[in-house]
Amino acid sequence: MPRLPQIRPNVLRMAPYVPGEQPGPGERIIKLNTNENPFPPSPRALAAIRSIDPDILRRYPSPTAELFRATAARVHGVSADMILTGNGSDEILSITVRTFLDPGDTLAYPDPTYSLYPVLAESCGIRVVAVPWEPGWQLPVQTLLASGARAIFFANPNAPTGTAVRPAAVRELALAFAGLLLVDEAYVDFADENCLDLVRELPNVMICRTFSKGYSLAGLRFGYAIAAAPLVAEMTKVKDSYNCDAISILAASAALEDQDYARDTWQAVRAERSRLAAELGQRGFDVVPSQANFLLATCPGGLAADLYRSLKAKGVLVRYFAKPGLADKLRITVGTAAQNDALLAALPG
Amino acid sequence: MPRLPQIRPNVLRMAPYVPGEQPGPGERIIKLNTNENPFPPSPRALAAIRSIDPDILRRYPSPTAELFRATAARVHGVSADMILTGNGSDEILSITVRTFLDPGDTLAYPDPTYSLYPVLAESCGIRVVAVPWEPGWQLPVQTLLASGARAIFFANPNAPTGTAVRPAAVRELALAFAGLLLVDEAYVDFADENCLDLVRELPNVMICRTFSKGYSLAGLRFGYAIAAAPLVAEMTKVKDSYNCDAISILAASAALEDQDYARDTWQAVRAERSRLAAELGQRGFDVVPSQANFLLATCPGGLAADLYRSLKAKGVLVRYFAKPGLADKLRITVGTAAQNDALLAALPG
Repeated sequence: MPRLPQIRPNVLRMAPYVPGEQPGPGERIIKLNTNENPFPPSPRALAAIRSIDPDILRRYPSPTAELFRATAARVHGVSADMILTGNGSDEILSITVRTFLDPGDTLAYPDPTYSLYPVLAESCGIRVVAVPWEPGWQLPVQTLLASGARAIFFANPNAPTGTAVRPAAVRELALAFAGLLLVDEAYVDFADENCLDLVRELPNVMICRTFSKGYSLAGLRFGYAIAAAPLVAEMTKVKDSYNCDAISILAASAALEDQDYARDTWQAVRAERSRLAAELGQRGFDVVPSQANFLLATCPGGLAADLYRSLKAKGVLVRYFAKPGLADKLRITVGTAAQNDALLAALPG
Repeated sequence: MPRLPQIRPNVLRMAPYVPGEQPGPGERIIKLNTNENPFPPSPRALAAIRSIDPDILRRYPSPTAELFRATAARVHGVSADMILTGNGSDEILSITVRTFLDPGDTLAYPDPTYSLYPVLAESCGIRVVAVPWEPGWQLPVQTLLASGARAIFFANPNAPTGTAVRPAAVRELALAFAGLLLVDEAYVDFADENCLDLVRELPNVMICRTFSKGYSLAGLRFGYAIAAAPLVAEMTKVKDSYNCDAISILAASAALEDQDYARDTWQAVRAERSRLAAELGQRGFDVVPSQANFLLATCPGGLAADLYRSLKAKGVLVRYFAKPGLADKLRITVGTAAQNDALLAALPG
C-alpha cells in the first residue's frame, strides 16, 4: 500500500509566509493591517472588468500581456521588451529567484524587510544573508557587498519601516555589485523618488512594481518588473506560459493609463500620512518618517502586542510582528481620514 | 561598470515552452489550435465577474481561495483541505515540481504528452525520463516504475493524442509506485471516466484540473489539485501567498456550481467530436479515438505541415507539432458545428 510521497527536505523545514489577517465577508473591521490603498480602483479599471467580452474569457490570454507591456512602455518611457508581467509582484520575485539563483547560492537583503524574501529563497534551497540596516535606515552597502551574494533584494520604500533609500545610494551599490540588484518598488507610488532611471542606465538593476498598493487592485494580482531586455527574455522562459489572466491584463492597463486618478489617491494618502504621523506623535508614539502608505510606530511603553489586541477588540486591525526589533512597534496602514480618525479614537486615552 | 548579471545555466540552456498561436484582436480566424471550449462560459461565472465589488478588488484575496475550496469539496465529495487552487493548472504543476522534486531527481512521464512537463523540470534542474507509450496508447507501467523517478506525471486524457487510460490501470501503477503520481485531468470533462476515486483511496495520487477547457475560462487562469491533505499543506507553503485573484475565485466557484451548464457544453463537444472524427475518416485521415476535446489525425499522405499552412491561409488554425512521431499529424480542437463545418470545407477536395 503506497504511503504519502516524500516532500523535499527544504520544503518540510520551511516556515510558510504568513499573510496578514483578512476579515471574512461582512465583518465590520477598520482594516489597516495589509497596506491596501484605502480608495477604490480607477473607474476605468472597473469598467474594463465589467465590460469583459466572454470570448476573451474563453480563450487563452496573451502569454506576455502585450497590451500591458505597450502601455507600461509608454507610461514609463522604456521599451516593451523591458517589461515582464506577473501574477502579483510576488510572482516576479519568485521568477527572479528561479532565474538568477542556483541552489546553494546566496541572496542578501537588508533586514528587517519584506518577510517573503527568505521564504522564497528557502523554498529553492538558496542561502540568505540578512544584513541589518545601518543607523537611520541607511543601506548597508559594504556589508551587502561582502556577503558573497549573487543577488541582492531590497524594498524601497522598505517594509515594515516605510523608509526609503535615495537613488544615488542605490546607484553606488549597483555600480560596485556584479550580481543582480532587485529594487522592490511595491510602495514607490507614495514616495518622492524612484529608481527607474537606474534601470535605464545599469544592466544589473531591476525594479519591481505592483498594482496592489498604488492602484488599489490587491485583489487583481498584477505586478511587473522593468529590467534590461535580455534579463526579461530569460525570466520569460521561467514563468508559467500564461501567468497573467485576461481580465487583469485589461484592468491593469486601464489603471496604469489613468495616472491622474491614481495620483489623486497617492496625494490623499500622503496628506493623511502626515496628519496621522503627527497625531500619533502627540500621543507618545515614536513614528519613523514614512515614504510608503503605512507608518511604523513604536508604542508608548513598548506595549505593542497589548495595543494590537486592544485595537482588534475595538474593530481596528493593524499589523504586529512578534520579531526582534519589531516587537515594540505596530505597522499601521494609512487609511481614509475617517478610518484614521477611528484608529485614533480607539487608542487608549 | 556592471554587466548583465549571470543567468542560471539550466535556464540559459532551456528551450521555452511554446504556446499555441493566438490571433490578435479582430482577426477573423476559426481557432481550433489550443483546445479551448467553443462555447461561452457559464452565465453565472460572467455575472460574478460583471458584478464585482470594487472593495473586493482593493483588498487582498483569500490566500487559499476558501470560497472555491468549499465549493469544490461539495461538488467532488472530498474535504476542503484536499483542494489546492492555482493560477491555472500550469501553476499547480510548477508547485508540484517544486514541492516534491529536488534538483537532480527524476521526473518520468509517458511520451508524447503535454510539452510543459520537461520545461518545468529543466527550469528546476530535474532530470526527465520520457517513456514511450505502449501500443494502443497504453500506460507503460513497468518502464515508468523502472525509471528511478521520484514523481510520475501523466495527462489523462493525454495530449496531443486524446487517448485515456482507464482508472484501473492508473491504480495498478499507483499501487506499485512509492513516489508521487500526478494525473493531469485537464481534459477529463470530455471523458467517460476520471481518477477522483483513486485520490480518495491512495495517498500518493494527485489529480489536477483546470477551468481552461471544460469550463470555457482559459482567459481566467484557474486550476486546482485534489490530493491528500498533508500534501496540500506542504504545497501551500511553496505557492505564492495570494496566487489566485479575487475575480477568478468568484468566477470559478460560480462556474463549478453550474454543473448543468458545463455538462451541456461537454455533451455538445462530444457529439461534435464523433461527427468530426467520422467526417475526417471519410476524407482519408486516420483519427485516434479521442476522450478529449480535440482529435489527433494522421493526414492523408502524411503531409501535415502542408495542410497546416493551407488551412491557416484559409483562416482555419489547427496545431502542428514538428516532432518525431507527430510530424505527419494535426491536432484539431473540436469546435462548434459551424466551426467544424468550416474546417471540413477548407480541406482540399
